[in-house]
Amino acid sequence: MRFLAYTQGNQTGVAVLSNGEWRGAADAGTTYAGSIQAWIEQGGEALWLAGDRLSREPIVDLANVDLLPPILRPGKIVCVGLNYADHTEESGYKQPDHPTLFPRFTSSLIAAGEPIVRPFVSETLDFEGELVAVIGRRGRHISKHDALDHVAGYSIFNDASIREFQHRTPQWTLGKNFDGTGSFGPWFVTADELPRGAAGLRIETRLNGEVVQASNTDQLIFDVATLVSTISEAITLEPGDLIVTGTPSGIGHARNPRLYMRAGDVVEVEIQSIGTLRNPVVDEPLQRAAS
Amino acid sequence: MRFLAYTQGNQTGVAVLSNGEWRGAADAGTTYAGSIQAWIEQGGEALWLAGDRLSREPIVDLANVDLLPPILRPGKIVCVGLNYADHTEESGYKQPDHPTLFPRFTSSLIAAGEPIVRPFVSETLDFEGELVAVIGRRGRHISKHDALDHVAGYSIFNDASIREFQHRTPQWTLGKNFDGTGSFGPWFVTADELPRGAAGLRIETRLNGEVVQASNTDQLIFDVATLVSTISEAITLEPGDLIVTGTPSGIGHARNPRLYMRAGDVVEVEIQSIGTLRNPVVDEPLQRAAS
Repeated sequence: MRFLAYTQGNQTGVAVLSNGEWRGAADAGTTYAGSIQAWIEQGGEALWLAGDRLSREPIVDLANVDLLPPILRPGKIVCVGLNYADHTEESGYKQPDHPTLFPRFTSSLIAAGEPIVRPFVSETLDFEGELVAVIGRRGRHISKHDALDHVAGYSIFNDASIREFQHRTPQWTLGKNFDGTGSFGPWFVTADELPRGAAGLRIETRLNGEVVQASNTDQLIFDVATLVSTISEAITLEPGDLIVTGTPSGIGHARNPRLYMRAGDVVEVEIQSIGTLRNPVVDEPLQRAAS
Repeated sequence: MRFLAYTQGNQTGVAVLSNGEWRGAADAGTTYAGSIQAWIEQGGEALWLAGDRLSREPIVDLANVDLLPPILRPGKIVCVGLNYADHTEESGYKQPDHPTLFPRFTSSLIAAGEPIVRPFVSETLDFEGELVAVIGRRGRHISKHDALDHVAGYSIFNDASIREFQHRTPQWTLGKNFDGTGSFGPWFVTADELPRGAAGLRIETRLNGEVVQASNTDQLIFDVATLVSTISEAITLEPGDLIVTGTPSGIGHARNPRLYMRAGDVVEVEIQSIGTLRNPVVDEPLQRAAS
């Protein structure tokens, strides 16, 4: 099944794709006491039952709603760096023997269609198209064999990065967490709709229609099962947690001349069988009061 | 005021220190529709009103309750590395010109009194005593001048680290996020009870009674106001967010011979005018099923 979250007026809705049409309820929180994240957390049949009920709701015209990130407040967002060999090479790193992990904080999340914001403090806004795995079942010390049973489904991420801030100290955190840079969506696809581990899917990033990244999830050095297993060696994974699996080569920062995103650009990340995550780019207003 | 959170049976309580005694309600969530985090988020007088009401509740005997982290699910936990010159030097880094930031995920949090867990995958469990600033007011682009108005109060952190995992890739995340390693507490102290910016406070870590770290928050390279201002250049800070400000020299990993924590140890972090955060150390059980 495919689920998306949206706002219409001041209501939050959830919709499910049913026979090629999105059907849902704008007051899903009230009618169904839930959200995609809540149903994933409830486990068992909750997500399927919600999908079934939503499929009998009215059609939702995506042109008339604003999308939300499918999981609005993940308990944690674990991002993976250096997970495609060609990207590790273009970034000037020696390939680590283990997954390289860094965080996204929820405050940086935006949805499909929302603008990615180029902060006024830097010109170095770069794109990174990535596959996201959404955890469905709590676990620690999850074996690689069992790992995919802990994944509820998949989505798409644009891990937009402010390169100047990413590299000004030994840790990348600040440059990876600017407000308005973590684009996530457009929807959540349950794992059963995709090849096991979301393997073998074409992934492509386009900037103003031009292909800037093109690879395949088969090229992940640490595949989804390995990531789940390795992270859970240390950390309890919880329903709704995201693993953002890393980006292939082609980033703007590694190009000559460099290619950064600017106001007016449109960036798209497409993953085969999942969909396309599209965002315009805007400049942060120069005057912005602390609020 | 000083607040702590606790469990008694299956109820969650909050207590306030009043005339040298902790007074509170075990069903604070029901009676007061809140938690320390919720009252901080409500802003204005909410925290003071709650403290006033709690001060008329019965005495809470801390010997009969289990403490909780004062903020149970912070929206984000931003940790600062390399923020005392002597620690930067012992760690073999050149001092960065900007704060070095890394994450804690909430899944790693434990309270005062709870055991810090040495995972069976590594012997390299190390201590790091630190001052925590708790954000009280939402903001972005907060000036250094206004920064301390965004801090609700302070607490103590033991940023226990699995050194082997911290250093096996370019990013420290995994070694900083093992379950049962992020000790936070014992209580939350409102900013008005401490010197401005919690500056000039002795900070000391003791392992089995022996002093292993001893410094003063005056030695922070980037003080609390600078951290709030710098982080908010990129990231919206939200009520309940934690900034864990970094550790002074003396870590076990930089000693010769190295000094790691082991089952049976007791580790304490004391900060002048705040309190003492004490944890025993246990080994993770060898057999632990994914649950």
